[in-house]
This record gives sequence, structure tokens and C-alpha cells, in this order.
Amino acid sequence: MASQGVTPRSEDYSRWYTDVVQKADLADYAPVRGCMIIKPYGYELWENIKGALDKRFKETGHKNAYFPLLIPMSFIQREAEHVEGFAPELAVVTIGGGKELEEPLVVRPTSETVIGHAFAQWIHSYRDLPLLINQWANVVRWELRTRLFLRTMEFLWQEGHTAHATAEEAQQETLQMLEVYADFAMNEAAIPAIMGRKSDQEKFAGAEASYAIEAMMGNTWALQSGTSHNLGQNFAKAFGIQFQDENNEQQYCWTTSWGVSTRMVGAVIMAHGDDQGLRLPPRLAPIQVVAVPIYKTDEQREVVMDTILRVCEPLLSVGIRVHIDDREEVTPGFKYNDWEMRGVPLRLEIGPKDIEKGSVALARRDIPGKEGKQFVPQDGLVGTVTRLLNDIQKNMLKQATEFRDAHLHEAKDYDKLKKVVEDGWALIWHCGTAECEDKIKEDTKASSRCFPLDKNPEWHPQGEKCAVCGKPAQGKAYFARAY
Amino acid sequence: MASQGVTPRSEDYSRWYTDVVQKADLADYAPVRGCMIIKPYGYELWENIKGALDKRFKETGHKNAYFPLLIPMSFIQREAEHVEGFAPELAVVTIGGGKELEEPLVVRPTSETVIGHAFAQWIHSYRDLPLLINQWANVVRWELRTRLFLRTMEFLWQEGHTAHATAEEAQQETLQMLEVYADFAMNEAAIPAIMGRKSDQEKFAGAEASYAIEAMMGNTWALQSGTSHNLGQNFAKAFGIQFQDENNEQQYCWTTSWGVSTRMVGAVIMAHGDDQGLRLPPRLAPIQVVAVPIYKTDEQREVVMDTILRVCEPLLSVGIRVHIDDREEVTPGFKYNDWEMRGVPLRLEIGPKDIEKGSVALARRDIPGKEGKQFVPQDGLVGTVTRLLNDIQKNMLKQATEFRDAHLHEAKDYDKLKKVVEDGWALIWHCGTAECEDKIKEDTKASSRCFPLDKNPEWHPQGEKCAVCGKPAQGKAYFARAY
Repeated sequence: MASQGVTPRSEDYSRWYTDVVQKADLADYAPVRGCMIIKPYGYELWENIKGALDKRFKETGHKNAYFPLLIPMSFIQREAEHVEGFAPELAVVTIGGGKELEEPLVVRPTSETVIGHAFAQWIHSYRDLPLLINQWANVVRWELRTRLFLRTMEFLWQEGHTAHATAEEAQQETLQMLEVYADFAMNEAAIPAIMGRKSDQEKFAGAEASYAIEAMMGNTWALQSGTSHNLGQNFAKAFGIQFQDENNEQQYCWTTSWGVSTRMVGAVIMAHGDDQGLRLPPRLAPIQVVAVPIYKTDEQREVVMDTILRVCEPLLSVGIRVHIDDREEVTPGFKYNDWEMRGVPLRLEIGPKDIEKGSVALARRDIPGKEGKQFVPQDGLVGTVTRLLNDIQKNMLKQATEFRDAHLHEAKDYDKLKKVVEDGWALIWHCGTAECEDKIKEDTKASSRCFPLDKNPEWHPQGEKCAVCGKPAQGKAYFARAY
Repeated sequence: MASQGVTPRSEDYSRWYTDVVQKADLADYAPVRGCMIIKPYGYELWENIKGALDKRFKETGHKNAYFPLLIPMSFIQREAEHVEGFAPELAVVTIGGGKELEEPLVVRPTSETVIGHAFAQWIHSYRDLPLLINQWANVVRWELRTRLFLRTMEFLWQEGHTAHATAEEAQQETLQMLEVYADFAMNEAAIPAIMGRKSDQEKFAGAEASYAIEAMMGNTWALQSGTSHNLGQNFAKAFGIQFQDENNEQQYCWTTSWGVSTRMVGAVIMAHGDDQGLRLPPRLAPIQVVAVPIYKTDEQREVVMDTILRVCEPLLSVGIRVHIDDREEVTPGFKYNDWEMRGVPLRLEIGPKDIEKGSVALARRDIPGKEGKQFVPQDGLVGTVTRLLNDIQKNMLKQATEFRDAHLHEAKDYDKLKKVVEDGWALIWHCGTAECEDKIKEDTKASSRCFPLDKNPEWHPQGEKCAVCGKPAQGKAYFARAY
């Protein structure tokens, strides 16, 4: 049995994170450097993330498909910025079936190229547009510094790829999917992520414009948690994705791509976790309610277990994810700590006294100690538990939003920026150049996160100057320490 | 628009198959030799297969997890038979991040080794057993002769991996999962697959015993559609998967593995398809009902479309998968052929006359022509359609079972076997040796499929001799041409 407890966040946030991932049984390192094994509890969390996203993709008209893992090296080389961006990160298959290959095959780092090739064959006329495809897949990027869920050599993700007849439609799609991600983050993951445009230096290799949702972690660092790219006609031209328009003329398509990965699991851990471990929003939690029996004698055990089964049955039958912890080799106290570590939103306890009174005890993970505990009647428990799970979901979003808002600050000048990014995100007028971003990074370790959409009603506003270099500002941008 | 119609099965079954896969828009070849692109319609079929299997795995206590794609070469080499079986089929990554790797990494052909390594770390005591894990993943095997869905270099599958305290439990699990596969095939895919044990020559590399479900295709060839392996203690010993038993003694675990792949899509195509194209069992069909409007004038169009929307709404609301084909550039006749090609179980037609009568026409894919068409009232359509879909599901299983049973024959001697396997499966007393199987294969192209469980109440029955070589028989085995 693993020892309980994690390194306090204040002592070493990075060790706290790794402790939580491992002790909550989410994932572990694999024998190959930089790869991870996603354990059943972590994978179920990912399945719930996947389900909630997939539903949204289908509701917005996208269909899933599957494209090959192995990509000819020549494909990767066809879009100039793309190859430059990905070349250093490639895993390359050079031997197949015992023989050296004539053309090496790349393990996909992302699928723009092979999907571009397919789209060129699928699309003929304007009637074939828009083409709205999504893929759930694994990808490999040769990372040197890895961290479980946040940056691993292999990760799981979805990558959406769409083709459109006009630039406007492609831009609409890019922003629609950004909003889908923000909606998912807010309403499922209880994370108030900020939607924004990435600066030129931070955009995807081959994109015209990249957008991201940026989430604030418990140490105030930022985590880019989903991206949406307007690829313009770059990939369409590289792969010959053309259509005949209504006037019988050949046109290049406008394409987009967008993705969310297992990184989102890291976002959930760091947006909500505390010194007791993980805290999971009820809508994503693999276990929403854990039931712990309390007894001393064998006779008590029998009565308590009978009652627990009877009380939990209606919860299970309406689809609430309940786990009954009937382990005999550990104490109730051990179980409490164990399930707090694993972030289960609600704990249900039943002992002999509760049976006498016809009640159960319910303890909320989001409100520690006595304040979060209440005794409620066994009658009507489905309603009570449903209400509480909704409350917890809302309260976790409220807590995360308050924390975020307390750490967002406008900075009028560079000195203020330097101070703010020690413990928060600084919003500055920003020229958008790589020079300025590199300087800020070197001085403060903070990077350009995004130009938030809601703070930039217009671009290149007249008279506004970059808070760092004094050149004309593109808009207001957040800078922060980031993963 | 693709031309309609496929090569008749009687003319060229193999071309018929490829025609159906491509014209029904299930999949296509990828730019890398031997790989495929699974198109949205084919992928949705796979999602339905996946969903029905995943539900069964979870109901039998298994949990999903995810293990790495890349496996150290040394792992593959650790189990002697395993490396011998897989060495010729490996895709090997030798370059990562621009550098030659010290130890090459294998793209997983299957995950026994890396999961064995993980199990050795996860399992300590008898309390950790049984460990019941499943993974949904892609795997790569360097195949030279490939065919869409049936044999591709990369394919999607699930691989179950379990560890147990006793040999008996491992054997029970192996057979339980075989039964889960047969149950899925029968009740979801409408395929009456036969459960049996593979001969020594045909078993999995590293297994003690392999079992399979074997399905009969429309040309009477066999397709191995799912396998379940009892691995004994082979992988436990190679990877040190040990547990402390109740007497505090260290023991090696007994492990199993079992898998179903995108090959199952090929099984569905060939078990049910006809010269009009695909026929999908309703429980797996991405579209269960296609609604085709019939009109001549624009006024008619409006009324007909309104009625279709009104009539389909209650079907959709109870979860029936309905697609309304409102394309204007093609005729109803074209649409009929198109959806027959794609195997949609039920077609709903509404024209001006149906509106007058308050009826709709329903045409079954499983019963061709007028016999399969009926006019029913719009009132109570949910009940009618639900009933019909159930009927179609049952009838497709009945048709497949009758076809199978008409092509299963006992063969008392080698001459009879030779004749039977020209157009069916021959059941013979079989010695189980590789020599005999190789001889049969050379003479007839038929291979040993399995020792069917229901025909072998006892093994090595006294006095029974192999129908081919005359040596003592292990039991009765099916021989057939196979994919």
C-alpha cells in the first residue's frame, strides 16, 4: 500500500504535482524515457474528457475518421514552416520487416500533411465543403524535458481538420472550435480558461493565426490547454486541396486544425488540486460518490453493508458514478485520506448511528472539514446527491475564477510587469514582436500567453505603445510563467 | 460523384470486397503502402463495434488503460517464442530528435511485453489479483500482402491483458472473453461465429493455448475474427510478474490476453454483403433509417420535406439513427442505390401520395424488391420502425446461420475433405500436427481453423484417428480456406 500524503504545494509545487499524479494512481513513467502509462483511474478521467468533447464536436457537425500513424518523410517536408517547426521533434522508422526502408517514415507528430493529402482526393466541388473531420489518436514528439500529462513524448489527443470554401468560413470555424474548448473547460472541467490569439512567434508551424485557451494553474502559471489554428491556404497549396466553385473555377480551400490532448488532465490536476491531493469536478470524475462503511463488529458490518447497498442502488440506477469501498484491511480514516487524494467530489459515510437515525453523512471534497459535512435523510438521497454534485461543480468553477481574477493584473510599464509575473499574469500593451518576447522571457522567465479576445475589441489601436519597447502596440497581451 | 454498382461476387469475390469498401465509403488506401484511411462512415461503424465491446468488457469487470506505443527492442526479445513470432513483422524507430538511438524502439505489434513490465510493478499481493485491464490502441505489423480492414500494416484494436493467482482462473478468463466475443458477434454483428481452440501451429507466439471465433464469409472462406490466449506463466516468468499468496509465498501469476481488431469490419462486410453492396446489421449501422423525399415540383418538395421532418422527429428522439437525404442534385432512384450500397437497413420514402394517405413506405435492405417493401401509417411509426429493425437484425443472423450450416460438412477421409473445402468447411478427426496441416494446406489451400469447443466434449478420444495421416486424433477440427 502506498504511503499517504503529498509534498505541500508551497514547499515544492513541481513535486506536489508528480506526487498527486502517482499517488492518485493517474499515471506512471513508462520504461521508454519520456513516455507514460495512463493507469485505469487516469484513463477513465480522460475517457470522460473525451466523451464531453466528442459530443460537442458531433453537435457542431464534425465526423470522426482515422488516418495513418506513419507518414512519408517527404510529406512533412512539403510545407516550409511546418517542417522547420517539427523536424527537431521527429521519431523516424527506418527499418520495416527486417529491411532498411527506401523512404523513412515519420511517426506522426500531428496529421496536417497526411490529412491534407487525403482531402485533396476527397474534395472536388463546392458541394463537398465544408469538410469537417476529427481524429482521436496518439502522436509522438521527441521531447527532452518531459512531465507526466503536461509534456510527454507520446500523448493522446484529438485533432480536428476542416476545409472551407472561403477565408471567412475558415476563420469562423477556427473561432467556433476555440469557443467549444472554452465551453468544455468552463462547464465540464470547471476551469475559467481565457480565449486569445497567440503571437506570431508562438503560433503553430504553418498556421496563419493560432488561438488558444490559456488556463491558470494553482501556482499562477499558465497552461495552454487547447489550440485552434487558421491555416489559411498554406496546406491547401502544399497538398493541392482544390475545389470547383459554383462558377466552375478551381479554387484552393481554406483549412483549419484544432486540438486538445491528455495535457487537459494536467490542467484539471493543477487548476483544482490542494495539499490533500486531487480535486475532481463532478462532471469529469470517474467516481462521483465514494461510500465508506463504518463498523466495529462483524454484526455491525453486515447491517452497515446491507444499508449501504440499499442506499446506493437508486444513485447507481440514475447513473451517478458510485464506488463502495468495502476493503477490510484498512480503516475508515485511511479510506477518507485515500479518496481525498483521488479527488472524489463527495464521500458518503454510514455507521450504526446513521442507521438508527435513517440518515447518512455526506462530506464535500471542495469544502474541507466540518463545514463541508452534513447529515441528511436516506429518503430522497438521489435528489440531495444530485443537488450537491451540481453545487460542487459550480463552487469549483467559482473558486478557480476567484483565484484567477485575483492574479490577473494590468501592467502599465515593464517594472510592473516584472513584479506581477512573480505571482500572476500581467496584461500589457504589446508590440507582438519576437524580440520583445525574448527579452521579457530572458529577464523574467514569463512568456507571451495570448492576446485575450475580450480585451482586444480592435487590433493595432492608434496611439497605444508597447509597455516594454515603446513601439506601436498590436493589442493587449498576457505574459506569465507557463508550462 | 462515384459510379454506382460493384463487381458481382460470383465474378470476382476479391474485387467485390474492395469495391464495396471503397464505394460504400468505408475506407481507402493511404499514401504509405499497406496502411489505410478509415473514412467517417467506416469509422462510425468501428465506433459502434467498439462501444458494444467496451460495454461488455466493463460489465465483466475490466478497466481501460493506456500503455506506450514505443517498446524497447530488448523487451520484445525477452520471451523466446514471442520474439520468434514477431521479429519479421517489426517497424523499428532508430532515429529520435535528429539522433541515432542507442537502443532501437519497436512500434508495438502487440503489448504483452510492455504490459508485462508494468504488471510486475503493480502486482504485489494476492489482493491485487485478478488484474483485469483492456487497451484500445493502434498496432503496426509489417505485412507484405495487405487488404483493407482484413490485413493492414497499421490496425486499430483492443487488447485485453489480465493476471490471475491460479491456472484455473486464467483459463476461465480466457474462455469467458472468447464467449464475450461470440456473444458480440452473434447479437450485435449478426454473425454466428464458431468458438474453438487453435492448433499448436496456429497459436499466438508465447501462448500456452489460443482460442478464436471463426466466422464464415459469403464465399465460404473463414475469417478469424477475435482471439483469446491463455499465456500460462510464460510472460510472468519473462517479466517477473509475481505475487505474495495468502501463505506469504512468492508465486508467478498466470496471464491472458485477447483481442478484436478493425478486421471485424471486414467480417461484417463479407458475412452479410450482396451484389448490391453492404448490408449492415441495425445494431451496428451508423445510419439505421434513411429517409428519401419524393417530389417533382418545388411546392411538392416543401410539403414532402415538412412531412419527413415531422415524421422523423419522434424516431430521432428515441435514439434511432436517422439520416434525411435532402440532396437535390440526384434522383430518388440514385439515392436508393446509394443507400443500398452503404447497407442502411431500412429506407423510408415519402411522396405526395403517402401524404394524402397518411402513410410512409418502408423498404428493408435484408429482403430485396417488393417483398421487402410495405406501406405503414405515419401514426405509431416509432413502434413499427423499432419492430422492423429488430426483425432485420434477427433475420440477418438467421440468413447467416443458414448459409453457414449449409457449408459445414463432416469429412471421414482426405478425399471428402478435399471436395468439401472447395465450397465449405470440413470437420475432420485431426492429429493436430504441423506436418499434417502443412500437407493439407499445400494440397488444398485450406488451413486448420480450430477445434470447435461444441464438437469436442473430450480431447484425445480413444481409438479415433486423424482423417489424413491416421495417427491418433486430438479431436475434431475445421479446415477451410481462410483470410
